[in-house]
Amino acid sequence: MHRELSWPDPMVLGALTAVSDAAPLVHCITNIVVAGFTANTLLAIGASPAMVENAQEAGPFAAVAGGVLVNLGTLSEERERAMVAAAAGAHAAGRPWVLDPVAVGALEHRTVFAKGLLVHQPTVIRGNASEILALAGAGAGGKGVDSTAASHDALLAARSLATEYGAVIAVSGETDLITDGTDVVEVPGGHPLMTRVTGVGCALGAMMAAFCAVDAPPLAAAAAASAVLAAAGSRSAVGSPGTGTYAVRLLDELCALAGTSGA
Amino acid sequence: MHRELSWPDPMVLGALTAVSDAAPLVHCITNIVVAGFTANTLLAIGASPAMVENAQEAGPFAAVAGGVLVNLGTLSEERERAMVAAAAGAHAAGRPWVLDPVAVGALEHRTVFAKGLLVHQPTVIRGNASEILALAGAGAGGKGVDSTAASHDALLAARSLATEYGAVIAVSGETDLITDGTDVVEVPGGHPLMTRVTGVGCALGAMMAAFCAVDAPPLAAAAAASAVLAAAGSRSAVGSPGTGTYAVRLLDELCALAGTSGA
Amino acid sequence: MHRELSWPDPMVLGALTAVSDAAPLVHCITNIVVAGFTANTLLAIGASPAMVENAQEAGPFAAVAGGVLVNLGTLSEERERAMVAAAAGAHAAGRPWVLDPVAVGALEHRTVFAKGLLVHQPTVIRGNASEILALAGAGAGGKGVDSTAASHDALLAARSLATEYGAVIAVSGETDLITDGTDVVEVPGGHPLMTRVTGVGCALGAMMAAFCAVDAPPLAAAAAASAVLAAAGSRSAVGSPGTGTYAVRLLDELCALAGTSGA
Repeated sequence: MHRELSWPDPMVLGALTAVSDAAPLVHCITNIVVAGFTANTLLAIGASPAMVENAQEAGPFAAVAGGVLVNLGTLSEERERAMVAAAAGAHAAGRPWVLDPVAVGALEHRTVFAKGLLVHQPTVIRGNASEILALAGAGAGGKGVDSTAASHDALLAARSLATEYGAVIAVSGETDLITDGTDVVEVPGGHPLMTRVTGVGCALGAMMAAFCAVDAPPLAAAAAASAVLAAAGSRSAVGSPGTGTYAVRLLDELCALAGTSGA
Repeated sequence: MHRELSWPDPMVLGALTAVSDAAPLVHCITNIVVAGFTANTLLAIGASPAMVENAQEAGPFAAVAGGVLVNLGTLSEERERAMVAAAAGAHAAGRPWVLDPVAVGALEHRTVFAKGLLVHQPTVIRGNASEILALAGAGAGGKGVDSTAASHDALLAARSLATEYGAVIAVSGETDLITDGTDVVEVPGGHPLMTRVTGVGCALGAMMAAFCAVDAPPLAAAAAASAVLAAAGSRSAVGSPGTGTYAVRLLDELCALAGTSGA
Repeated sequence: MHRELSWPDPMVLGALTAVSDAAPLVHCITNIVVAGFTANTLLAIGASPAMVENAQEAGPFAAVAGGVLVNLGTLSEERERAMVAAAAGAHAAGRPWVLDPVAVGALEHRTVFAKGLLVHQPTVIRGNASEILALAGAGAGGKGVDSTAASHDALLAARSLATEYGAVIAVSGETDLITDGTDVVEVPGGHPLMTRVTGVGCALGAMMAAFCAVDAPPLAAAAAASAVLAAAGSRSAVGSPGTGTYAVRLLDELCALAGTSGA
């Protein structure tokens, strides 16, 4: 079944309210470029981010977190060990975790590493079309961290990946596509400026971990997170003279949608 | 003795002027989430930040810095070695250093590590109530990096910690409490939005290192730093539509208080 | 030959248009303080940043990137291995690479490390006067990451460094000086607030890598990047109440100059 979802669908509103009410602890192992913006995005929607990225702490911390994000942006030997520990810890404890396979396909080392993480059964895998195609073994990778394919081109690969690993696959693009292998949710909206601010896609992965943490089914959680970010991304563009202002407004709009501005 | 301190108390004004006049070099070993915001906060008040976090350089650099910050946010094996070297180097050279025990109590590994650092006699320990309680062995830790206790709940623990280690303890919260074990300074003000922007507490630790660097007594230095940030935090909230704008204004207001806007 | 260059010189306009048209992939190994701001700066001028900083990936990735930045800000053992791999990989593949010797001179370990990188023949070396003097063996280093010398004081050292290593040397300061050992380009403009926002100099190094990537001769590329940033830096100061707003406007102005605002 194909359906379209966007703000202010009652399911999206309900999911966002659940996040801001519960303030779930979201454990993020992410990259040095976007860690601050990711934390601020989670805080804007009312979640409680914590970045713990060493091998000793990541496993136990994942087991007590509401949701976990593993983002491959800037790999290092120690961060890789922490990612394995977090993925294994989350899976063993039944906590939802999101894999963001940044630049998989463009670089062999991380392609192998990402595939190895799949044994720990991510709840959601979020990437651009090139990354999803590469993870499914169906594409050659994008240009660095940017996609060279459109999201619809990756739909078949996303469905087969979803079925094979029992995960929800979210393909980010002009239209976001989220599938569990059977159903497909399309999230339109957003704005091209979202690709001109670093970390917007990475923050979406973290938001999905927060939405999964409040007991929403993963397909609905990932789709609701996409719809919230798309709404904020589209509103932020109005009158923004450039990406500096746009990034600031994106956080403001997330606060407005989540009702956290006065908090 | 209990007293209250806030901007524009002449002591606070004098301490801030001393920082912006002397532009002390502040050596920060901090986490990947807040490093940029911390540097911008220090620059806003006229200090000169430098982040050096490898084991070879951290010790010698701490010895020539005006003040040192050791923030446990994102530990790694190498960063831990650098932290030990910096703490030891600062202590040996008689340079003030500030310990920010992020998430201590919530995670066993860092609780042990933080306690090990105390042998190098931090000048100031700044944390939220949960962290201070845990460091004193009197609490079970907060929720990730967030406190589950109010600052007044930690006052007894803070006093005993101050006395035991000869350090000033600063408990951040709705009201900041700063004590040397005998005297207690209360800093009211600030704004709840300060907890919705990542790194505001971490930046306060760095500011305390800058204020200690200009030869203020540690209790006065830590209290003055708190009062400056509380004033900026409160002013920034006026008319901010969300946390994006609020974080930008926080730096602007610090510049305004420090008179560095035109520099 | 001495000449002055500034926006809107046709060469500068042409170089910026070439960057925003080609969207070169710029591989940055940089520090945890400025990684996000650097990526946003590159995105603002239309380039495609990717930060890959582990030893396995950095070499092969440098060989396929349009340009490479190696910034020594926060060294770590693994990041150093990645830097060597990236510098060697870029050199072997004939890709331009920029060395930013942050705090060289102030710290012995990185001074030795930076000199070791010179064997891989950087295309451009960008630093402040203290760093360039130290790299040339002619100065004792600045105050942490800040210069204690003016750019003109470093011109002789810059020329000899340029001649010895066949590199373009860019000395950042109130006036930027860029030389290939024979010709000297002076870029005036900019604004003192550029030194009060962390990462502006680091972002300039990344911009130089982007400009070199679109086949401009290195002297022209480095000078054009300086002129673009100086123009944005000067325009951003108008009406900025402090460094928070200033940093946001800097990205907005880069977008405006590059015509990427509507993208």
